[in-house]
Amino acid sequence: MATENTVTTLERMANLLRIRSIESTQAANSGHPTSCASMAEITSTLFFNVMRYDPQNPKNPAADRFVLSKGHCAPILYAAWAEAGAFPVADLNSLRKIDSDLEGHPTPRLNFIDVATGSLGQGIGFAAGMAYAGKYLDKSDYRVYCVMGDGECSEGSVWEAFWFSSFYKLNNLCGIIDVNRLGQSEATPLQHEMETYRKRVDAFGWHAIIVDGQNVTELLDAFKEASTIKDKPTCILAKTLKGAGLKGIENELDWHGKPLGDKAAGIIADLKKLVNEETLIRPEIAKITAKVAEIKKSKEIKLSSPPNYDGKKEIATRLAHGTALEKLGKSCEHVIALDGDTKNSTYSIKFHDSFPKRFVECYIAEQNMVAVAIGIATRQRYTCFVHTFAAFLMRAADQIRMGAISFTQVKYVGSHAGISIGEDGPSQMALEDFAFFRTVPNIVCFYPSDAVSAERAVELAASYEGAVYIRTSRPNFPIIYKNDEVFHIGQAKIVVESSADCCTVVAAGVTLHEAVKASEILKKIGKAIRIIDLFTVKPIDRDTIRKSVNATHDRLLIVEDHYLEGGLGEAVMAALADQPNITIAHLAVREVARSGKSAELLDKYGIDAQHIVNAIEQLIENKT
Amino acid sequence: MATENTVTTLERMANLLRIRSIESTQAANSGHPTSCASMAEITSTLFFNVMRYDPQNPKNPAADRFVLSKGHCAPILYAAWAEAGAFPVADLNSLRKIDSDLEGHPTPRLNFIDVATGSLGQGIGFAAGMAYAGKYLDKSDYRVYCVMGDGECSEGSVWEAFWFSSFYKLNNLCGIIDVNRLGQSEATPLQHEMETYRKRVDAFGWHAIIVDGQNVTELLDAFKEASTIKDKPTCILAKTLKGAGLKGIENELDWHGKPLGDKAAGIIADLKKLVNEETLIRPEIAKITAKVAEIKKSKEIKLSSPPNYDGKKEIATRLAHGTALEKLGKSCEHVIALDGDTKNSTYSIKFHDSFPKRFVECYIAEQNMVAVAIGIATRQRYTCFVHTFAAFLMRAADQIRMGAISFTQVKYVGSHAGISIGEDGPSQMALEDFAFFRTVPNIVCFYPSDAVSAERAVELAASYEGAVYIRTSRPNFPIIYKNDEVFHIGQAKIVVESSADCCTVVAAGVTLHEAVKASEILKKIGKAIRIIDLFTVKPIDRDTIRKSVNATHDRLLIVEDHYLEGGLGEAVMAALADQPNITIAHLAVREVARSGKSAELLDKYGIDAQHIVNAIEQLIENKT
Repeated sequence: MATENTVTTLERMANLLRIRSIESTQAANSGHPTSCASMAEITSTLFFNVMRYDPQNPKNPAADRFVLSKGHCAPILYAAWAEAGAFPVADLNSLRKIDSDLEGHPTPRLNFIDVATGSLGQGIGFAAGMAYAGKYLDKSDYRVYCVMGDGECSEGSVWEAFWFSSFYKLNNLCGIIDVNRLGQSEATPLQHEMETYRKRVDAFGWHAIIVDGQNVTELLDAFKEASTIKDKPTCILAKTLKGAGLKGIENELDWHGKPLGDKAAGIIADLKKLVNEETLIRPEIAKITAKVAEIKKSKEIKLSSPPNYDGKKEIATRLAHGTALEKLGKSCEHVIALDGDTKNSTYSIKFHDSFPKRFVECYIAEQNMVAVAIGIATRQRYTCFVHTFAAFLMRAADQIRMGAISFTQVKYVGSHAGISIGEDGPSQMALEDFAFFRTVPNIVCFYPSDAVSAERAVELAASYEGAVYIRTSRPNFPIIYKNDEVFHIGQAKIVVESSADCCTVVAAGVTLHEAVKASEILKKIGKAIRIIDLFTVKPIDRDTIRKSVNATHDRLLIVEDHYLEGGLGEAVMAALADQPNITIAHLAVREVARSGKSAELLDKYGIDAQHIVNAIEQLIENKT
Repeated sequence: MATENTVTTLERMANLLRIRSIESTQAANSGHPTSCASMAEITSTLFFNVMRYDPQNPKNPAADRFVLSKGHCAPILYAAWAEAGAFPVADLNSLRKIDSDLEGHPTPRLNFIDVATGSLGQGIGFAAGMAYAGKYLDKSDYRVYCVMGDGECSEGSVWEAFWFSSFYKLNNLCGIIDVNRLGQSEATPLQHEMETYRKRVDAFGWHAIIVDGQNVTELLDAFKEASTIKDKPTCILAKTLKGAGLKGIENELDWHGKPLGDKAAGIIADLKKLVNEETLIRPEIAKITAKVAEIKKSKEIKLSSPPNYDGKKEIATRLAHGTALEKLGKSCEHVIALDGDTKNSTYSIKFHDSFPKRFVECYIAEQNMVAVAIGIATRQRYTCFVHTFAAFLMRAADQIRMGAISFTQVKYVGSHAGISIGEDGPSQMALEDFAFFRTVPNIVCFYPSDAVSAERAVELAASYEGAVYIRTSRPNFPIIYKNDEVFHIGQAKIVVESSADCCTVVAAGVTLHEAVKASEILKKIGKAIRIIDLFTVKPIDRDTIRKSVNATHDRLLIVEDHYLEGGLGEAVMAALADQPNITIAHLAVREVARSGKSAELLDKYGIDAQHIVNAIEQLIENKT
């Protein structure tokens, strides 16, 4: 039982946090003070009684984690950290200013934030990843807390995370839903139907506790109860009021995302009486009790053995990826793989079979899989490779976008890209993946064309300090490179060349092999071409391409198994935009594709060897 | 009570469908016969007893709808339609061949398919849209059936649809989950825990019925019960076996997505004995009983009144969008708007307030919102406009991708694009939207820069026979165009020009206004520039840009509030790739942005008027 003094102090702290939230949003003249107010008691209870952490060292790996899924409540989160001593309280009024890291929604520019939030429904997936890491990888006793809004519980990603967390019995995870009844533009669909929330949470395998979210005693009891549950996560369903404690605003619609304006001064004056700051002794922060092993990762993670192909057999890059991943697993015990029930297609199964304890089966829930990976990868302890068909990574586009804002270093691996997959048809063919992934700031996008380069792409990905996308292919490809070939990020390879080349062809994946076939057809009629394997689509090897084009009569053909927009073609054209006098042709997929044999599709959509031959002849005709 | 004869016949039909599924996947040498087998009784019962439809006219608007969410079971779906008489049974063996529309996963190239499936977890959202249309828009008695796999129920989008459908009391919707226990690479997380499924479905507000999914009598009873439920949708939880009825394969792992090979002949022989086709009298298809009003839509939907701005007040394009949408609503009663609890930000609230019965509040569940819109828009009866922040449309990227494969004509409207939104920070800023949307085949991407052009974009969008993306902006912009200005898809506008222009600037949205400011700064130092308002980013007005660049000393600057990749810059550079001697500069956002005032951010990330001035001076220096 909490003492009366503890309860009173936490109530006063809650009102102090309300004041800070109102003040900072007044100073910013924007923000969400009413959404902060409903979670004031939740926040004071967590930060000043329940959570074990070190405000002076927020990244302590043994500390409890906190994720604010309802990221628009950043002001009260910042207030809690400031009042806990992480930074001066006076800084709170720099909220949302361009020279402050106290942004409108939390981002890891702040050392006490692990993941960016603000796109709703994602926080609980990140938290599930952290809890998974705590229980199964770190094998530590730290706990993970995540505050969600009620409105965001309409997002399916929330229920993916609930499913995942109960399946893996993440009893170290405690979610809190701030059921304040009101969304942005109207009431939430369930309003205050607390029993419906309980039924849903319970059905998804969590321990549910309904509390009055403005009642500190009930909250303290609930957090205590949560800590005793041994076989499942706990969700505290906190019935609250939007704008709780703000006179004239509490429980009223049309106060979403607005500072209090004229009403602020009066409300702050009222709250100050409740806080009585002069006599307020701030509670001590609970000490960290969990132990976590230090992670000793070398800066470079190497393949345990080099590629080993005799060149006689064709190998799919997806298979080579699996081989390389298994080798990384041998070299480094902090490499983790995740898959969404496609491991026998993406070949992450090779890692799964060798290192079952470092493999996370996420089933068919790509959004949650990406969120879990981002969660596991926080604090740079584990290197996570996420797998599914490239087409289905698009399901997690918004998580990947938010991952970029979190500066995550997750490695995304998409298999079965392009029309070359054949009979399964367009729903399974990624043709827009590079357009999307290339927008991620500082990402490296690999597109390996044979087994040797695929293995090296995986190796380079592991050590790269940032996000990575690797596009692998379904068909078997001939081996192009010797086993000792050296690869670098941003370095293309010239795979066919002569002094008589009449044109440069830039390709990767299946189209590289079509280009090689085209060069053999052309050779028979006395024409030679230079062929560049792009290897990384971002960053792009501008110099190699430019020099090659200049050396081949300023003729360039780009051919890709991707839609016309945003892929290799536009990347290369943008890189060469400053080069005068180049004649460029571009072969790519221009319409919704269909089922058929791989070779038939490459022909039908105009990216096979014969179309390359024709395009080159056309280029030569145009420019002689 | 079904007669014994009915039951026996449907059992025989189920085995006939099994045979057809095995035969066609044998002919294709790929596909998913075991996933078909588990749903054979479900299919025979639905297609040959329960559903009211016309195989000769599958698009009859009064017919019951069927969505195969587990799209990989296309072979049994095709078999059912063939056996019902929609096309010759012999055609089934063209499955997955390039000259056949019987693709690996269903697409609306087939006249009996409304929506493409094959990316899992989406079908029930499409079906929810169809059921919403049936109950509230068509006000008709047709019913909607959707067969899901158990594996795909890990997808959050399924639970978004469950939430939506119970909230809107869609008792005309019947979902069937084929709980066959086995996923692609291992057992599903819930295996045969039927009571857990029941709890979840029930908690999400549906009527749940557990049946033996291989038992025709139980299925018939369940469908009958479903039709009597008046206040909620029904979900039939069918406990089945993967490969049911296929000796030696039934309930075995490692048979996902494989034809039966050597085992096929023996199994077919066994099944043929059960079918005894010579004596099989195929059941009559149930007659359509629902009535649906004919929709009379003129080919062009016009604004009820032209734009009406006096030019004195600055107006946000998002507000002008709302105004135009309301005008469309007045002109045409088949225009529908959907929003995800952002209607007071996107201004779809203007439509909501005028036409509440044609507005669908989808709450914070963007995937389901897009799926519902695609469902409502099937059979070309309604023109749907979908709204949220542009950043959050990315949440539905995979639904939009599948929508493209469905040839949907849904109009996506994304507000609050770019860093110009200011203080809310990067989580709310779409900076990759054009990169993604431009990949959709045949889409039109509008990026209006003032209220007049925004209204006309909305009008053009409504009549365009394909998907549309409209990017609107948060800040207020000056009015550029006269109220009677005429706009066309793919036609850019020159907004500033003179005979002395030294450079062309291509821009849109906030950067167009920055370019105009830059022209005024440059004028003071005696330099003139030509400014092009792109208006549509796809298709792009190559001719206007080319002529303008040629007339302005072959100098071109593109400036955009979007990441460097995949936006206006790359679109323009690709369009001009064949133009020699052009000097190009490109200003765009190159890193993760942050919070701040709009003008500060435009400066910080290098896309404001002063940066335009500097870039132009640089261009002139390079090329004099």
